Amino acid sequence: MALPPISSLRDIAGLADALPVADAAAAEAARARQNSLTKPPGSLGRLEAIAEFMAAWRGTPRPEIWRAQALVFAGNHGICAQGVNPYPQEVTAQMVANFEAGGAAINQLCAVNGADLDVIALDLDRPTGDFTEGPAMSEVECLDALWQGASAVDEGADILLLGEMGIGNSTVAAALAAACFGGPVAEWTGPGTGADKAGIARKIDAIERGLKRHAALIGDPLAVLAALGGREQAAICGAVLAARAARIPVLLDGFICTAAAAVLHAADKRFLDHCLAGHVSAEPGHRKLLAAIHKRPVLEFDMRLGEGSGAALALGIVRAALACHNGMATFGEAGVAQA
Amino acid sequence: MALPPISSLRDIAGLADALPVADAAAAEAARARQNSLTKPPGSLGRLEAIAEFMAAWRGTPRPEIWRAQALVFAGNHGICAQGVNPYPQEVTAQMVANFEAGGAAINQLCAVNGADLDVIALDLDRPTGDFTEGPAMSEVECLDALWQGASAVDEGADILLLGEMGIGNSTVAAALAAACFGGPVAEWTGPGTGADKAGIARKIDAIERGLKRHAALIGDPLAVLAALGGREQAAICGAVLAARAARIPVLLDGFICTAAAAVLHAADKRFLDHCLAGHVSAEPGHRKLLAAIHKRPVLEFDMRLGEGSGAALALGIVRAALACHNGMATFGEAGVAQA
Repeated sequence: MALPPISSLRDIAGLADALPVADAAAAEAARARQNSLTKPPGSLGRLEAIAEFMAAWRGTPRPEIWRAQALVFAGNHGICAQGVNPYPQEVTAQMVANFEAGGAAINQLCAVNGADLDVIALDLDRPTGDFTEGPAMSEVECLDALWQGASAVDEGADILLLGEMGIGNSTVAAALAAACFGGPVAEWTGPGTGADKAGIARKIDAIERGLKRHAALIGDPLAVLAALGGREQAAICGAVLAARAARIPVLLDGFICTAAAAVLHAADKRFLDHCLAGHVSAEPGHRKLLAAIHKRPVLEFDMRLGEGSGAALALGIVRAALACHNGMATFGEAGVAQA
Repeated sequence: MALPPISSLRDIAGLADALPVADAAAAEAARARQNSLTKPPGSLGRLEAIAEFMAAWRGTPRPEIWRAQALVFAGNHGICAQGVNPYPQEVTAQMVANFEAGGAAINQLCAVNGADLDVIALDLDRPTGDFTEGPAMSEVECLDALWQGASAVDEGADILLLGEMGIGNSTVAAALAAACFGGPVAEWTGPGTGADKAGIARKIDAIERGLKRHAALIGDPLAVLAALGGREQAAICGAVLAARAARIPVLLDGFICTAAAAVLHAADKRFLDHCLAGHVSAEPGHRKLLAAIHKRPVLEFDMRLGEGSGAALALGIVRAALACHNGMATFGEAGVAQA
């Protein structure tokens, strides 16, 4: 199915009832196949679970990845006025140019694991509002970014990798996580691209003022997304929903990407059923966030780069899982005795 | 250099002084390059450390993997007479045939991550001796298997993946680990390919009897290898040494492969400096063994298959690390501002 039109943020929670669910029969057939392959049952560990997950969402017992799409959304953030990031905001556009020229980590990781990279720069010359002074986005702006994210998803892809770039957006992510899942702001806030102790203190202060200003919205995750989020966060939500509509499994990236998607989880727990956490990053809030949305990361590599790098690294694991699932001989085919 | 001829097991420990060491200058140049790439310093986490490790052992600041060789050694074990494995011993040869036909997990994982697989069956119709009744191998048999392992290494490879197949060899591995590193046999002994509680008890009992019989050899790891090991374990030791002589970094596989290589570590801690642990397996003794040899595994996937599968999965990570290391633009090249 295609994602139904979304005319207001309020419409989104209701989509959870309309979107496709996992195909239990395909997953069961994949499990039966795993148990027939020439290995002790269960001995491929999490690779077996990943093959079943892919079967469930692609709706076939032997899923394949012909096309892997990596989508990296970039945005700029008014919250940078609060001194939350050591890099100048121009770096967002410079890194987008680097993505387009093929010089970033995500380019190399997509190439080595066979993903097609699309980079979507979202109004970089028009940063969102400073959420300590007002809403980051109007509902219309938020819906527009969300729809740009949804529209960027190629319905012909077999798997979608999501990532982001945006100077200041680890502050945005921490604000979203704190607003959606509660707890001390300090536990959601880390160094991001490299803030020092004073920088982290500025981040925490800015987020606390933002939460205070928008306190009335707590409990309404999509309203929180507009008030505290950014365009790339809204676009990630849109892409997650469009992928779900097309039964495309998603690999989430690090803290910032996960915090964006977690807004949907806060609205309805079912929204992220088709998503895997590609990795757990070194950003301290990420582990807490993955626990909050009940995702076990595929990889743990102390990475903290964003731009979809952890998702692209995890794609290699998913490919390996499916190579075993589809390519191995069964005991009968190979003439190997069973215990 | 080529590995010097080895005329007795006693010669081996002395090789530690003669073999190449890590190239500190290449590693430092690789670190400097990492810090110039378009990312916050350190943000690729363990991928950066892997790139430096490869640089150190290949002796160049920008190492590449043109040829990855996977070597899987197979052997049969007299200890099977003690009822330590639920599978019949014929499965070793059947699995070798499956490797040769391309139907096993290792074939798919090598294909997906670009490794060339060589399978070396070591006298499968002549199992080693039952170590509860006498030595598994004579010194000559052990040296012969060790040399077969060393000879199988392609000196033109840029990285070597090691794996094994042999019904009964998780018992052999646990015996080697217990003999080399001490502690209760039960802590080294697990289900292997699928032993139940009674099967594990039989494994522990057989190992305890073997350790008692060969107690005089404890403290002489290479003598322990001959007495308690198998041909594929000796071959793995030979391959590790030949790779070191040729400055080829090694990816170790799971518990059984690691236990074989750990014999060398017990003889001289420097012997495994050029080795990475590809993964930590679900076999309970593996984590303990990796701690004993001070290796942090690249991956943790609850796998317990052997045959080099964890090493081959980890190769994809090493390729990703080098793709970033070699392919990314520097800040200067990309015109990206630094913090």
